[in-house]
Amino acid sequence: MRMIDIIEKKRDGHPLSKEEINFFVEGYTNNTIPDYQVSSLLMAIFFQDMNDDERANLTLAMVNSGEQIDLSAIDGIKVDKHSTGGVGDTTTLVLGPLVAACGVPVAKMSGRGLGHTGGTIDKLEAIEGFHVELTSEQFVKQVNELKLAVIGQSGNLTPADKKLYALRDVTATVNSIPLIASSIMSKKIAAGAGAIVLDVKTGDGAFMKTTEEARNLAKAMVRIGNDVGRKTMAIISDMSQPLGNAIGNSLEVIEAIETLKGNGPKDLTELCLTLGSQMVVVGGKAQTLEEARQMLLQVIEDGSALEIFKQFIKWQGGNDAIINDLSLLPQAKYTFEVPAQKDGYITFMEADEIGTAAMLLGAGRATKESEIDLAVGIVLQKKVGDSVKKGESLATIYANSDNVQEVLDKLTTYIEIEATKKEAPPLIYEIITE
Amino acid sequence: MRMIDIIEKKRDGHPLSKEEINFFVEGYTNNTIPDYQVSSLLMAIFFQDMNDDERANLTLAMVNSGEQIDLSAIDGIKVDKHSTGGVGDTTTLVLGPLVAACGVPVAKMSGRGLGHTGGTIDKLEAIEGFHVELTSEQFVKQVNELKLAVIGQSGNLTPADKKLYALRDVTATVNSIPLIASSIMSKKIAAGAGAIVLDVKTGDGAFMKTTEEARNLAKAMVRIGNDVGRKTMAIISDMSQPLGNAIGNSLEVIEAIETLKGNGPKDLTELCLTLGSQMVVVGGKAQTLEEARQMLLQVIEDGSALEIFKQFIKWQGGNDAIINDLSLLPQAKYTFEVPAQKDGYITFMEADEIGTAAMLLGAGRATKESEIDLAVGIVLQKKVGDSVKKGESLATIYANSDNVQEVLDKLTTYIEIEATKKEAPPLIYEIITE
Repeated sequence: MRMIDIIEKKRDGHPLSKEEINFFVEGYTNNTIPDYQVSSLLMAIFFQDMNDDERANLTLAMVNSGEQIDLSAIDGIKVDKHSTGGVGDTTTLVLGPLVAACGVPVAKMSGRGLGHTGGTIDKLEAIEGFHVELTSEQFVKQVNELKLAVIGQSGNLTPADKKLYALRDVTATVNSIPLIASSIMSKKIAAGAGAIVLDVKTGDGAFMKTTEEARNLAKAMVRIGNDVGRKTMAIISDMSQPLGNAIGNSLEVIEAIETLKGNGPKDLTELCLTLGSQMVVVGGKAQTLEEARQMLLQVIEDGSALEIFKQFIKWQGGNDAIINDLSLLPQAKYTFEVPAQKDGYITFMEADEIGTAAMLLGAGRATKESEIDLAVGIVLQKKVGDSVKKGESLATIYANSDNVQEVLDKLTTYIEIEATKKEAPPLIYEIITE
Repeated sequence: MRMIDIIEKKRDGHPLSKEEINFFVEGYTNNTIPDYQVSSLLMAIFFQDMNDDERANLTLAMVNSGEQIDLSAIDGIKVDKHSTGGVGDTTTLVLGPLVAACGVPVAKMSGRGLGHTGGTIDKLEAIEGFHVELTSEQFVKQVNELKLAVIGQSGNLTPADKKLYALRDVTATVNSIPLIASSIMSKKIAAGAGAIVLDVKTGDGAFMKTTEEARNLAKAMVRIGNDVGRKTMAIISDMSQPLGNAIGNSLEVIEAIETLKGNGPKDLTELCLTLGSQMVVVGGKAQTLEEARQMLLQVIEDGSALEIFKQFIKWQGGNDAIINDLSLLPQAKYTFEVPAQKDGYITFMEADEIGTAAMLLGAGRATKESEIDLAVGIVLQKKVGDSVKKGESLATIYANSDNVQEVLDKLTTYIEIEATKKEAPPLIYEIITE
């Protein structure tokens, strides 16, 4: 088998066989196929696409390129959730306890974030004492008994994906549905997911700018998951404005706790119920999305989801007193209000720019070396569609510096007020179950 | 300027500016742009093509990437001819003296061949004493006085093209009209051509298998040449069977001399008159192709073309007695006839396979290190459309080994005889003058 024949075959629009896909993924991983041949193939894939079989085979080839997490010691179907990423996305913190309370085991491997705020682990570390250094035995035991544990990323998972992604990033081949879909799915599968729920974001704050693009990606991933024997569902949700109100690490922990108490922002709550329903169904604990939704409402209502979150904090060394005393979380030194410049309605909140404002405060990492400030961030007082009076606060800035002019200016600029009311965009565009 | 933006622009179907093309060609030549980005761009060009401006700019960027031969000391328009390559193509040996005799200066830089037979220099070296080691001064003087000289390749011409070609060869991006056309044209222009005539071959023995492909390439090159100020014409000619009768180095020298004497094979003579007419016109020595053709017929008729070939051999150290005594050229030890297996008509002669048969005898190089045997080769006795009797000779094999079974079998197999007569394919499919 020769790489040039594989490139030529794809270039001319023919599907690649499983053997051909394995050949190039293995060859690239172990450096026997040079990057200039792979980048040429990637560009051919960009133009010629891949069919369902090719996508499934590419995903599995990347899974097989490195170590795989073995979660077989954990009872039940291990469900993982993936979001394509947005601003102020607190769902993971809420969903874990929520679906665990319904009996679905959540064995989460998570990372630190690069971007507007920290990743799930950074957020959890806002809780005093909380840590993710569990042994495999501790991790398995905790999931079996509590149904919820979070561990840091370890092992050499999907090295092929890492190499391919780095190459795509510099050869203008990132934006290809089969390549994006197989990349995401291979990581989830290598991390041991038995079933997968996907939250594909669309809008200005998301990678997929249009609903059409988001739908293509979501369908591609759902198809791959089901083709390789992992029950997979997806939703397409809005990221034209930030999700929920809080953007920042301890601020999002607070928001998650409020949501588990039933007092969360309407949009975040609804998104968690929608994604959670899918997780409960693919996890085999309910037959229908409606039945699952009732179960989720019940575990919020009766406090069992909150109780699991509390136990989860305790098991992983954290101070569980924060559940009843949110002031035990890191506190910012200063708060500033962002006053409306005129009467009117909020017509637009540019998610990306508001996220960047949070990063400027120190809530997120601009580079891998950046230090995160867990206390700082932004809490929105208004969302798109809300009315506002001149001088009323649009948002609260939590800062550890008293010089927040740049952040203030950004928020004033990117939270747009107009005289005519504009309806908020729909939160969920589509639910994809197969 | 960033390479990734250039890749993305082309990927999305937008034309690249002159500055962008210069940026990537220069960057690749001096190793500041990595091959994996270039191969990705090449594949994007394969799919998105280039417009006329881009093609001209790419050609000039490759010309400017290295040294350029300065032929300004030679009077008149220096005309160069390029053939896309075929089997038994003796035209260069004939055309040089032919158009030189019409007053068109031919300052030819030539190489050694890799393939069925040697290159122009190998063929000329079949003449005892002939050499191409001329100083620049000698070369210029000879062209000014005799109108014809051949020199070996020297200098670092079009290094960008060399690098790009090597990369295309391993990334399935060879077969792209803008890339092929700019590669050929850049080499001719860097070698000092003031006007160019192109012989684009089509058929089984050629790189361009269909007339349609050949036409696209020919038109692309003619357009580039005229866009960058080099008057350019082209023909599309047949390479479904070998050109002329001789395939082999000294055998082709003999055929060239016979053609200059007016006794050459009909197809070779016609092709030389057609290409020669274009050369005389773009060289500014005739107004029309018909006028040029009459001049060419005249210089064959009056012996002046042959006289220039004789002088040319003498000037470059060769034994010019060969003109009148062809037996002074290297002689093969053995000859074998290839008898027809049945009565009928020649319906097909697979050019590629017959060329390979000549290479097996030692007429050409399989690798750069191979030694060429200048005496050996094949002379066809029949061409497509000819009738043949069982036992009659189809071809003569000139060999320096008495074991030619493989060659004999190849020729018997690939010279097809059928009961029903088939007309020979047209020699010239199209003449492209602008």
